This record gives sequence, structure tokens and C-alpha cells, in this order.
Amino acid sequence: MIKFDNLSQELPYQVFKEKYENSLNAKQKNIEAICISSYSSKNNEVNARYVNLKFVSGKEFIFFSNYESPKSQDFKMHNQISACFYWSSTDTQIRMKAYVEQTSKEYNQAYFAKRDKKKNALAIMSRQSSSIDSYEALKSNYEMILENNDLTKCPEYWGGFSFTPFYFEFWEGHASRLNKRETYEYKNDEWVHGFLQS
Amino acid sequence: MIKFDNLSQELPYQVFKEKYENSLNAKQKNIEAICISSYSSKNNEVNARYVNLKFVSGKEFIFFSNYESPKSQDFKMHNQISACFYWSSTDTQIRMKAYVEQTSKEYNQAYFAKRDKKKNALAIMSRQSSSIDSYEALKSNYEMILENNDLTKCPEYWGGFSFTPFYFEFWEGHASRLNKRETYEYKNDEWVHGFLQS
Repeated sequence: MIKFDNLSQELPYQVFKEKYENSLNAKQKNIEAICISSYSSKNNEVNARYVNLKFVSGKEFIFFSNYESPKSQDFKMHNQISACFYWSSTDTQIRMKAYVEQTSKEYNQAYFAKRDKKKNALAIMSRQSSSIDSYEALKSNYEMILENNDLTKCPEYWGGFSFTPFYFEFWEGHASRLNKRETYEYKNDEWVHGFLQS
Repeated sequence: MIKFDNLSQELPYQVFKEKYENSLNAKQKNIEAICISSYSSKNNEVNARYVNLKFVSGKEFIFFSNYESPKSQDFKMHNQISACFYWSSTDTQIRMKAYVEQTSKEYNQAYFAKRDKKKNALAIMSRQSSSIDSYEALKSNYEMILENNDLTKCPEYWGGFSFTPFYFEFWEGHASRLNKRETYEYKNDEWVHGFLQS
């Protein structure tokens, strides 16, 4: 589930919410899974991964991760990303291009304090994407953190990322394969609406 | 559905097929939907979109599209891409990094000739991502092509893209959130297997 908080009244945000609700009503599983694509200027490589989108707050889309992860390093050097949902329950695709930044320490601490303690143990452990010897090693590390750490204190290396789209595309599959594609592009302080070919 | 054809015996390909079959057995809808991320060196932008993956042939993953589309232009200038599946039926994510190229004209023509004629009308029409006035304009354009074109002849501007991964990550969500992440990286002519933290 995604939580909406003081959602922007601008048209693409309202369309987003409508499509989200349609897919939720169609019992979409893991509706919050979103593919985030970044560019590593260091490696000259595109990379992508799914994250769980937690909030849409005003015009900001927010998810949480480790600040030392490869994606975080990508964002620091190239703050433009792509973000895509695909909801099979309604055959709906939503594509966004956006700029991403870290949320504030205060925001992270407030959010962390409210979270489930077991999830926080994972966040503390999340020197993410570093190699380990086995899944068993991971589990024993986790147990140790659960016992020995303050699970209410947000570590410096963990927190939110907020991205604000400058481009939306809403795609709907149709049985005819004559798919519907509508775009919203932010130009000169307004959203320009368009259609694309199938 | 994805068709497998003379699939590589190398380990990550076999793992891929196993996870595919598990998700298919769990009744995953639109299992062929894959998020393809590209980098536009012209715009210095990452972009991503879902396509339908049609084949895994040997070591090549194959989908079809318009060769004049924005993604095709991205691929020409930067042939490295990211490709991600997320199958909610089994909470499975598969991440790949790969190099992409066009399939041959002969391959495209042979495939095109076997396809449904209505789909071919769409392919002929697919000067993809160019703006149109309305969804209705799109529909009337489609009807005209259905009546007036040779629907067995593959247009020059349409065909396959084949990508060959040099990196695989298999991610499985667990109720504990202690997720399982296994990687295969192609280095010095062999696949190096590893685990990542959750």
C-alpha cells in the first residue's frame, strides 16, 4: 500500500491516484513495488531495481533505503531517474522521469522511530549490496543486531529518497493492442498534456 | 508467456527458467512484462518502459519494437541496458545488466510473417512515441492501415532487440523481510556466484 499525504491537486497526480485506486480495487498484489532506474556515471552503466514506494506527499514520491547503497551513489552523481510501475491486475503502466534527493535527518528519525523493530534491525544491518558468504551468515548477523542494538535510533546511513517527477506517462493495455498512452510533461511552469501512438 | 528455445545450460539461465516456471505455476499475469532501462547520452537522461519479452533463445533475451522509437535511439548510442522482472505471484525480482543489439532483417521478416495480422497493422503504424491529437485519431489511422497495407511484409523500421546479460541478480522476498539475493556476474569467461545483504 502507498500512503497519500496532502497530494498535489495538479492533474497528473490526480490521474496517478485514480489509476492506483483502480489497481488496488482489482486486488493488485505488492502494488507499492516500483522499478527505479539510475545511471552510474562512474561505471557508465544503467542500473535498475525494485523498491517499495511508501508515500506520495504533496508532489514527492518517497521510498527508503541505505544511503551507502550502489543506487544512492548513482543518485549523488546523477540525480535524474526513471520510475515505473506495472500493475498486471489492470494492465496499467505508469512511467515517470524525475529528480531524486535524500529526505532530511529529522524526517528519517521520525519515520524510523515509528517503524516495526524487526524492520529497523534490517535497516541497521543494511550495508546493502555488500557481498556475504551465505544466506545463513546474513541470518545470524540479523539475530545479533536484534539483540544488541538500539532499534529506535535511525542510523546515519539509512533514510528516505524523495523524487519529484517532471514527466508522467500513463499506459493502458487493451485487448485490441491499440493501447492508450497519455503524457504529462512539465514545461514553463505547467503540465503539457499529450497522446502517444500505441 | 515467454518461449524458451535452445536455452543456455549455464547456471543463471537455468535459475532464470526455474523462477519463471514457479511464477507461471503461481498464475502470474502478464509474466512477460519486463522493465527495460536505457540511457540517452543525447539528453543525459535515464528512461525506462515495460515491453513484452517474447523469447529466450540460447543466451539472448528477445523483444520487438519500433526501430525509430526513443529507446532504439538510446540503445544505438549506449548499448548497455538494465532489464528487471518483478513477479508479485511469488515476490520474485530478477535484475539483469546486458548489452543490446538489433536482430537480423531475416529474423524479423520470418517472425513477422507468422504473427497475427492485426498486431502487424499496429507494428506498421508504430512510428512509436510520436504525438497524436487523440486516441480517436489513433484508432482511425489503425483502421486505414488494416485495409490498405500488406500485413505480411515487415517494415524496415520494426523488428527485434536481443540482449545478452553479463549480470543477474535473483531476489526473493520473505515474510521476515530477510530477503534472499543471489548474484551471477560474468568475469573472465565464467559466472561468479555471490550473495548480497538484504
